[in-house]
Parts: sequence; structure tokens; C-alpha cells
Amino acid sequence: MNDSYLNFVNSPFGARVARSLGLPKPEVLRRYRADEPEFGGLVAIGAGREPHLLDSLADLVASIGVTSVAHESAGLWMPLAHRHGLLTGRFEPAESGSAARVGALIFDASGIDESSQMEPLHAFFHDTLRSLGKCGRIVVLGRPPEACPSPRKWTAQRALEGLTRSLGKEARRGITANLVHVAEGAEREMEATLRFFLSPRSAYVSGQVVRIAADGLHRLANSVVVTDAIGNDAASPFDWNQPLANRRAVVTGAARGIGAAIANVLAAQGAHVIGIDIPPARDALEATMRQLNGTALAFDIAAPEAPAQISAALDDHGVDIVVHNAGITKDKTIAKMTGSAWQSVIDINLCAQERIDDALLAAGILRDGGRIVGVSSISGIAGNPGQTNYATSKAGVIGRVQSMAPLLRPRGITINAVAPGFIETQMTAKMPLALREAGRRMNSLAQGGLPVDVAQTIAWLAHPGSAGISGQVVRVCGQSLIGA
Amino acid sequence: MNDSYLNFVNSPFGARVARSLGLPKPEVLRRYRADEPEFGGLVAIGAGREPHLLDSLADLVASIGVTSVAHESAGLWMPLAHRHGLLTGRFEPAESGSAARVGALIFDASGIDESSQMEPLHAFFHDTLRSLGKCGRIVVLGRPPEACPSPRKWTAQRALEGLTRSLGKEARRGITANLVHVAEGAEREMEATLRFFLSPRSAYVSGQVVRIAADGLHRLANSVVVTDAIGNDAASPFDWNQPLANRRAVVTGAARGIGAAIANVLAAQGAHVIGIDIPPARDALEATMRQLNGTALAFDIAAPEAPAQISAALDDHGVDIVVHNAGITKDKTIAKMTGSAWQSVIDINLCAQERIDDALLAAGILRDGGRIVGVSSISGIAGNPGQTNYATSKAGVIGRVQSMAPLLRPRGITINAVAPGFIETQMTAKMPLALREAGRRMNSLAQGGLPVDVAQTIAWLAHPGSAGISGQVVRVCGQSLIGA
Repeated sequence: MNDSYLNFVNSPFGARVARSLGLPKPEVLRRYRADEPEFGGLVAIGAGREPHLLDSLADLVASIGVTSVAHESAGLWMPLAHRHGLLTGRFEPAESGSAARVGALIFDASGIDESSQMEPLHAFFHDTLRSLGKCGRIVVLGRPPEACPSPRKWTAQRALEGLTRSLGKEARRGITANLVHVAEGAEREMEATLRFFLSPRSAYVSGQVVRIAADGLHRLANSVVVTDAIGNDAASPFDWNQPLANRRAVVTGAARGIGAAIANVLAAQGAHVIGIDIPPARDALEATMRQLNGTALAFDIAAPEAPAQISAALDDHGVDIVVHNAGITKDKTIAKMTGSAWQSVIDINLCAQERIDDALLAAGILRDGGRIVGVSSISGIAGNPGQTNYATSKAGVIGRVQSMAPLLRPRGITINAVAPGFIETQMTAKMPLALREAGRRMNSLAQGGLPVDVAQTIAWLAHPGSAGISGQVVRVCGQSLIGA
Repeated sequence: MNDSYLNFVNSPFGARVARSLGLPKPEVLRRYRADEPEFGGLVAIGAGREPHLLDSLADLVASIGVTSVAHESAGLWMPLAHRHGLLTGRFEPAESGSAARVGALIFDASGIDESSQMEPLHAFFHDTLRSLGKCGRIVVLGRPPEACPSPRKWTAQRALEGLTRSLGKEARRGITANLVHVAEGAEREMEATLRFFLSPRSAYVSGQVVRIAADGLHRLANSVVVTDAIGNDAASPFDWNQPLANRRAVVTGAARGIGAAIANVLAAQGAHVIGIDIPPARDALEATMRQLNGTALAFDIAAPEAPAQISAALDDHGVDIVVHNAGITKDKTIAKMTGSAWQSVIDINLCAQERIDDALLAAGILRDGGRIVGVSSISGIAGNPGQTNYATSKAGVIGRVQSMAPLLRPRGITINAVAPGFIETQMTAKMPLALREAGRRMNSLAQGGLPVDVAQTIAWLAHPGSAGISGQVVRVCGQSLIGA
């Protein structure tokens, strides 16, 4: 759990050593703390021709209370910001040597209709990237390519992915870069997602592409959301500080590690957490749940009676959020892997989720407007030697969310997965040094993530404002080099 | 162009040194040669419950003339093979220490309906992997997940991806592993693709997932294919040794390097090649085209008059295959990149393709049943520092094939992209040693690919038997670690 290299190169002496030897210097990432402001620094706004999202962006800037500055590519921003009553100004590059004052770069590329119109992207990032401070944020906004009306627009919107991923790899200094595809009609549903990507909560999420669909809000409106007093149909009935208040969340494998972190973050956002873990972990589970006023349920999710057990336990009050975190590894090359090592990994990591979800859905225990989040893995995306069983199960988790999302849409239930990369846990602490160091450094942030990074990402997907996000896989990997 | 490490560790002395120091030993890959048999060794067949593809597989085994052996998971294979008049036997593991005699492992997973049915995959690869010889082939056959009738089947079929990619990373010894999704109704269209993946032509293609759609053959049937004399509607009017006979192929950037290799392979398969390159490369282009009896056209594809020029040059005879290989790099971090470096890369690598294709399609010069292949890049998939312009253009190429594929389907035209990883060229020969070595080794085959590997992959996509493959991106990267 202790990245001694990161600590060393961030000490005064270590920084000098690293500089003189040309060693990488991973940044100490800024993470969310309840006692610090979540958003800070200037937000620089850029845009391609005829941007569609600036109006919603102005609402967001007002909502999170930051000051914006307009790059020359976003000529529309100044008058628009004034109409929204926002303090704003023109972007001025930081003086060479002075501290960078910009906390985030946001580019609205939604109006780019073909590849010949992409020069404003260059102009914006060329001018602004050096002014972006440590642990700054880059968010590119576009349209879902597959929904674009012409091949030319689809092509240009798809091209944004190459840009955003390259920026994430270039930026360093703890900076993240992500691309958000906002469907037509979903312009008012960006807030939860943009808040996440601008916040220190997304410290270890970079190089990701997320799609916000248009029907999310309407589904939500049908079930749990009511139009608010000022008649704004995008307004939410939740408190941004306690968005999960009055929600009940099940977390499997909750006794320790990433599962306990998930339980903690969901509870901190207001959820009542029901933690599940195997009977041998009962004491740890109960201790974890006691701290967050949750409920402990000790049983084996892979047992045949588990779906009935969990349904019975949740039946009285129902549940809003299900996080399938429990999982095991039994690593061996396939030539040496026993049939039971194969089967138990598939069964616990994949089949058990299917059986439990299906039971909760059939009985209506998972309520309309609910959230399911599975935990996949980079191994499930890219494959991993010695993990044929694990990678198969985690690729299956991706198939699970992709296949169930359309079926659950009519009930306003979303289903997504997170795919952690190298996360500092007791498990990784036991890895051989060379392997551990390679895992830590082979990503754009040059360090491992923490369990809380996975947990914050899950909390964003579980958020009532994330109704438009379903069937997706979000990596929590610091933009690991490793992929498919 | 000279991988001296690979040469060294494959010398008798170097092999001893590598073994004693525990260094990786990249295999000298077997590549296609006209004077050597293309297929060899036993093919071991495995299957999950109720496999759907064994009958077509028996046709293939007969067609390529190899001997099959049945693993116990494929109980149906022996009687089926006998009905097809094939020599066959039961799979027996190689004696420890004896030479592996199996050349390919093929598993038909199309009948696996849910994740609880995946044990036969373990049993098959557990039993057979060690018997697979150097440069052997692993092909897993499944159904396209998104077309599966139930979420459970979708999930299990999607899980195959994690398995196949892990096998590719585990196998070593020049072995490749790929997953082919065969749509219902496309069972008779597997041959060109399976031939490619079983052949040394696919030496550097591993960890890929390819989808064969059902409508390919019918579209082809409407345009250029006639049912053959024995009434087999899957039979093709082409000669497997000269599949591109009577086809005309345009290749941009054909003077040298990968473009010249593409021109050579297409010509070797019977195509008349029209090579295009910029005027300063005229001499090299003419020399390359002279060797393969092609036609040289020297002009700049990015010039405004290029679409009209190319249309005029091709108008008389039309064209069947268009390969957009021409591309440039102008690498700099975005803060140091000029506007013209950005724009020229986007324009040449992406916009020019769009303009040329649109002109050829509008005038009907690209004939029905035609093939378009774009050259993308791993940088376009994963992003790359210092290549924001290049990665944007190459991600755009992916958008281009995805967006155009459905529009071109009614005309039987396919459009796909290849995404090369580290390919040994004059460009990579000039890279700094450490960077070049990292690029070479960070893939499952622990070496760079050759231009011919990209060319063979393009020839497979351009094949008349590849009508069911469109809108896809195939990496030619030795299963590079790097991805998204």
C-alpha cells in the first residue's frame, strides 16, 4: 500500500535526484476531501464551430462556482457567460515560470461536422495546456459518433478519441483527460458526469470515453424525479453533497480492500449500505459496516441458495444500488490450471452476479431507477498471461453490462462496469518488486491507484444524475498503457 | 530493419546465453512463402456443447488439406469428419520432450449459451496448448455477442475475448490466438478468414476479434458471385491461389515501405495494382510498379484536384480495391506543434481519404463488391504522446470505416482498417535504441512486425471471400501490450 518511490521523488532531496537522473516524477494526486473545496482554479473554455453544449456548460460553471476564461476559439462564451451572470474573462497564457492558474480545460467539440474543421482543437490545447496546473483536468465534449447524421461528422467525432487519449499521455503532472459524448437531447444531463471528471474524485480516471444517452432523464422522470419549483426539468431532487441519501446499496466483498472503500464512499454520499462477504470474513465485515452504520450479511454469494438469501434479506425495503465487487483470482497458466480453479473463478466472478441480479430483478427488489455496477478489470479487456480464468470472467462482466443495459432501460435501471488497473491493495503489496513497479509506472500518472479511486468512480455511476450512462465500461487505471 | 537481438538469441550461442540469463527469446516467425506448403501439422478440434460450426469447419479442413484430431470436448467431430471423408483421430498429448505435432487449435464455442457452460474451454486448452508447435495457431470461434438472443449467451460469448487474449499472451513461441465471431447464417463464409488466421500470412496478427456478418455472401451473390457447378452456394468463383485475379487495386503511398509491400502482395494474389505516390517519389514508385506490372500515378493525394485526377485515371476500367496507405507524421507535443503541422497530418491522413472515396463512390468508379481498406495505427486506438495530430487522424480512420460500412453494404462494398503496431521500416530504424527496443518487445511475439505482415492482412480484407467483414479494425501488432 506504500509507493516508496512516489514518496521519495516528492521529497525535496528525492526530487533533486530524480531530476538529475531524468527519472519519472509521479505527482502526488489530489483526492477528494470533505474539508477542502471540490472545485478550484480557472476553467478555460474552448470550442469548435457552432458548439451545442456551451449553454449547459454555463449552467455547470455556475453550479460548481468556478470562474471561467474564454479561449479565442470560444467566441460565444463571453456573451453567454454574461447572460448567465458569470464572472468571466479572456484566457491569457501563464507567464513562463509563473504558477499555472488554470484548473481545467474544457473544449466543446460537439459542433465539429467534419475532419477538416478540427484546427480549433489544436489552437486551444496548443495555447492552454502549459497553463494547466498540477492535477488539472481536461474534458473534451463531443457527440456519440454512431448517432451522428453523416459519416463525415461520425468520423470527426470519433477522431476526438485519438486526441483525448494522446493529451492524457502527454500532459503528465497528475493531469487527467477524458472524452464525454453527449447525445442530442442529453445536454441537460451532463452535470453529474462533468462534476466527476472535474473533481479530485476522478483522480485516477484518465483516457476514458463516456457516453451520455438522451433517454436517461426521461426514464428517471417517469420514476423518481419530479420537476422542481423553478420549472427546470433538468433539476434534480438530490443534494449534490448527499446524492445517495435515502438509497440502499448492496456491496459484495465489502469486508476489506476495494469493497470496504466502496461501502465507505457510498455511505459518505448518504446511502445505507448492506455489505456482503463470506462467513470467514464476518468479523471484518461487521467492523466495516459498524463504522458506516451499515448492515452486515455474511454468506457466500456463489452458493446455490445465495440469490434466495439475498432476496429475503432485502425484500422488506428493496434496494437501489447493487455493486458486484466480490471476486477471486486463482492464477496459473492454463496448462497447469485445474478444472476447479477455472470453474470457481468463473462462478464467483461472473455466474454469481448473473444469478443474484436476475433474482433481484425478477422479484422487483431492485427498484426502478436503480443502479447495477460490476467490477471488471484491465485483464478482462486486454487478457493477461496466467489469468485465463480471471480474464474470461472479467470479460464476461463486460458482456453482462452490455447485454442487460437495453433490457433494463424501460425501468430506468442502469448497469455499468468499472475496470480497475493497478490498484494498491494487500494483494499488490505481495507482488514481486519488479512486477509491482512495472504495474505502478506503466500508466499516464506513473503510479498505482487507491481503492478509493475505484469507489468514487462507482459512486458516480450510482449517482441519480447518471441515468443516461448505461452499458458502459469505465477504466480506473490512470490511463494504463495496457489495453486491447 | 534488422532485429539483431532476435537474430542473436536464435543463434546456437545466443540461445544458450539467453537461456542462462533468463532473457526473452522471440521466435523467428514463419511467414508465407509461395514455395512452401501454407498449412501443415495436425489441427486439434475442441467444442462446447451443441457447437454450430463443426460442419463448416469440416469443409475447411478438407479444403486446406490438413489432418484433424478431435479433443474429447468435441465428441461430434469424429463421425462428422468421417462423413466428410476426412482422415481423423483422437487428440493425444505430445510426450514430454517430444516435438509438438499440432499446428493449430480450433475451438467451436458457438454453442455455449451461458457462463456456467465454459468448462470445456478450459479442458481443451489445458490439454492441448503444450502440444501446439512453434508458430502454431489458436482460433476460437463464437457468435457475435450483440446478436445473441439472451443476455446470458451474450455474456458468455463476450467472455471468450478475455480467454483468447490471455491465451495469446500466455502461449509465446510465435503462436497467435484470435477470436472469430461468426453470425448466424454466415457459417459458410468462414473460409477466407480461417485460412488467413491458420496461415503464416497472419504471422503478426494476434489477440484480435473479427466479426463475420451474415449478409456478406448474399450481397456478393447479388453482384459478382455465381453459384458454382456443384451447386454449393458457399463456393467462390475465385482461385484460392490467385483470389484477386481480374481485380484492380489502388494503393496510395506505394513507392516504398509498407505501401510497396501492400502493392507486392496484392499483385502476387493476382491484382493489377495502380500505385500512387507524391511526385518527388516518382522514380521509386515507377521502379516498384515496374516489378509487379503495375501502373504508377505520381501526384499528391491531398491536393484539391486529387479526387478528380484519380477519378479520371481510373474511369475507363473502374477499380475494385482501394487501400489508403499514404500517411505522414509530424510529431511534437501539442504545446510546440504548429498549426500547419497539425493540419497537414489531419489532411493527408484523413481528409484526403474521405474526399477520394467520396469521389470514387459518387462516380461509381469503385465497383459494387469492392473493398476499401484504411491504414489506422495503434496510436489512433490508444493515443500517443507527441502525436496528437497523428492519433487524431488515425482515430478518424476508425470512425470513417465504422460510419461508411452500413452505407456501403447495399452495394456489397466493405470498408475496414488495419492498425499496425511496431513495424520494422526505415522510420523505426532511425528511432533511438531504447525506444525501438521497447516497441519491439512490448508485444506477445516480442518482436516488431514486417511490412509484409500489414500487406497480408490487407490482402485478406480485400479478398472476395471477406464480404462479411466490414466496419472493423484489425490490429497488426503481435498483440502489443498497448491499447485503450
